[in-house]
Amino acid sequence: MARLGLIEEAVVLAEGKFSVFGAKTASCILRYAAESVVAVLDSTNAGRTAQDVIGFGGAIPIVSSVKESLQYKPKQLVIGIAPIGGGLPPEYRRIVVEAIKEGLDIVSGLHYILSDDEELYYLAQEHSVKLLDVRRPPDSLTVSSDEARFLPVFRVLTVGSDCSVGKMVVSYEIARFLRSRGINAQFCATGQTGIMLSGWGIAVDRVISDFVAGAAEALVKAVFDADIALVEGQGTVYHPAYSGVTLSLLHGSCPNVMILCHHLGRTHIKSYDVPIPPLKKIIHDYEYLSSFTHPSKVIGIGLNTVDSDEETAKTACKQIASELKLPVTDCIRFGPEPLANAVLEEYKRWKSLWKR
Amino acid sequence: MARLGLIEEAVVLAEGKFSVFGAKTASCILRYAAESVVAVLDSTNAGRTAQDVIGFGGAIPIVSSVKESLQYKPKQLVIGIAPIGGGLPPEYRRIVVEAIKEGLDIVSGLHYILSDDEELYYLAQEHSVKLLDVRRPPDSLTVSSDEARFLPVFRVLTVGSDCSVGKMVVSYEIARFLRSRGINAQFCATGQTGIMLSGWGIAVDRVISDFVAGAAEALVKAVFDADIALVEGQGTVYHPAYSGVTLSLLHGSCPNVMILCHHLGRTHIKSYDVPIPPLKKIIHDYEYLSSFTHPSKVIGIGLNTVDSDEETAKTACKQIASELKLPVTDCIRFGPEPLANAVLEEYKRWKSLWKR
Repeated sequence: MARLGLIEEAVVLAEGKFSVFGAKTASCILRYAAESVVAVLDSTNAGRTAQDVIGFGGAIPIVSSVKESLQYKPKQLVIGIAPIGGGLPPEYRRIVVEAIKEGLDIVSGLHYILSDDEELYYLAQEHSVKLLDVRRPPDSLTVSSDEARFLPVFRVLTVGSDCSVGKMVVSYEIARFLRSRGINAQFCATGQTGIMLSGWGIAVDRVISDFVAGAAEALVKAVFDADIALVEGQGTVYHPAYSGVTLSLLHGSCPNVMILCHHLGRTHIKSYDVPIPPLKKIIHDYEYLSSFTHPSKVIGIGLNTVDSDEETAKTACKQIASELKLPVTDCIRFGPEPLANAVLEEYKRWKSLWKR
Repeated sequence: MARLGLIEEAVVLAEGKFSVFGAKTASCILRYAAESVVAVLDSTNAGRTAQDVIGFGGAIPIVSSVKESLQYKPKQLVIGIAPIGGGLPPEYRRIVVEAIKEGLDIVSGLHYILSDDEELYYLAQEHSVKLLDVRRPPDSLTVSSDEARFLPVFRVLTVGSDCSVGKMVVSYEIARFLRSRGINAQFCATGQTGIMLSGWGIAVDRVISDFVAGAAEALVKAVFDADIALVEGQGTVYHPAYSGVTLSLLHGSCPNVMILCHHLGRTHIKSYDVPIPPLKKIIHDYEYLSSFTHPSKVIGIGLNTVDSDEETAKTACKQIASELKLPVTDCIRFGPEPLANAVLEEYKRWKSLWKR
């Protein structure tokens, strides 16, 4: 799927922040589209390789400037970090300007829309380069018509106990695994990184509130003829700021089944004083909220164990699986197979009942 | 409160649609700010009075054109109807252009932002008139910081069984009633009509999804020094398209108490094939969803009985009140006093516990 994405002969910008967590977009691109990356730009790690710093990405070199990257013949600069607020700080602007002048296309997931910036717009025209703002929502969006539930594609939504727990990774990994088994499984991106990787999608956090469910509906409609749609979830219903986005995705995409994603050991909503409930209650709540418009159930848990050692991670997966009677895996560490198989089983059952 | 609003010596545009339901904004302005209206523009009802057509608004004349309205010395044209899609159809544009040329300011709640329209913008400059787009969200919005729950203002949110059941009216009526009793009660508008009436607020349906809870928080922060904030709710958690907006308002405003609004006799979400649950379940659900971030309870029911005769309306209020053990009233028909008293009682209890 990565080969259909937007990333091509790219320098990935992660200045001062290249790490698995500090640069979520950059590290996901290295994980899933390394073959499309020629260099990483981070002067604080220059001279090392991606593998040295984040543990994957192989021999991809880390360079200190756009100029230094030119020896690797890049076509693009991909902004792989998000500054707080989503703006374009002066130090990024300087790098973007330099890249445009060197003839590189710019791929950006910033809230700040580069092609709305007059200076950058005209500079890009002058140098015949493209500014790809993946966060700009399509103009065609409208309210949901509650039609997703009638589509002949089986819909799987990732839901979470919090933000940044691995919903994109779980959806992407399951889709990739199912495709490797010959199933027409389509990843439906709802955030910037997913859009860069798959080449399409809608960054729903930029969509006006009335249209978010409509955006989710549009995504699954776009793959109505696939077997399975893996919709990337966002946020959590417990989040004081983003709960509405989560509920809009749930009601707009009308999932047949859900995968619950959780970061092992996290007890509170990131940056907020709101406790995360036990997994059993979370499962109940998502199923209950689904029932408002379309019944759905949680059929597995994607457990992010990045902070734990191998033994702890294995024990946690086993223990949660036995407690909840559901398949549990860390898709990165142990692979997505248990979740992909659960999806496939439910898909087959649904398919056998589906009257076209 | 209406005197602090945006409406002043206004011609209210309701061409072809002047009725209580066909022109919600126009009829609310006639109901709450009639003293600021000089004429209604609807050629299909020209020659009659507001009272003749909608049953209130007294002798305010209905005219057939901007030109005809000039005899009443208007200062503004207020767009009192919303075409499907929220755009500016040619027939409205013609009227707006004529009004600008006659020197009238334009007050618009359309999704289509008039001041972003080059022709209208320059025409308005040429004729020194203002274009007031009440639906344009402020640039300063950001994500919620979950601080509303710590504010020293008592927060009341209207929630609903559906859209268009009377949430704005109930919030507005309670605020007005409490003010008449010397309480500093502030109406916090979240939709175009409320903003026109009160002169401030945020049309949350235009806000990008990540910032809706933040917008609700900003509204209650703006009145932190009042006694009571009456926050206008939007949509319903059962709505396939708008449920996320509703949840964002709930979690962003952190209401101490809620008033549930319902349209007597409505069985399904308007325009959708989704049944409305029994009131008892609706109350449970809003209280349950509140508990995710901040506990709250429903303390009364605003029943919209506009389609029923007096006797049916009275019986329904009594019956629901006895079933749910909560005060029930139709604020328009029977006045808001039962709900206002319930709010006041809860406010006093809360105040006595509040440690500043």
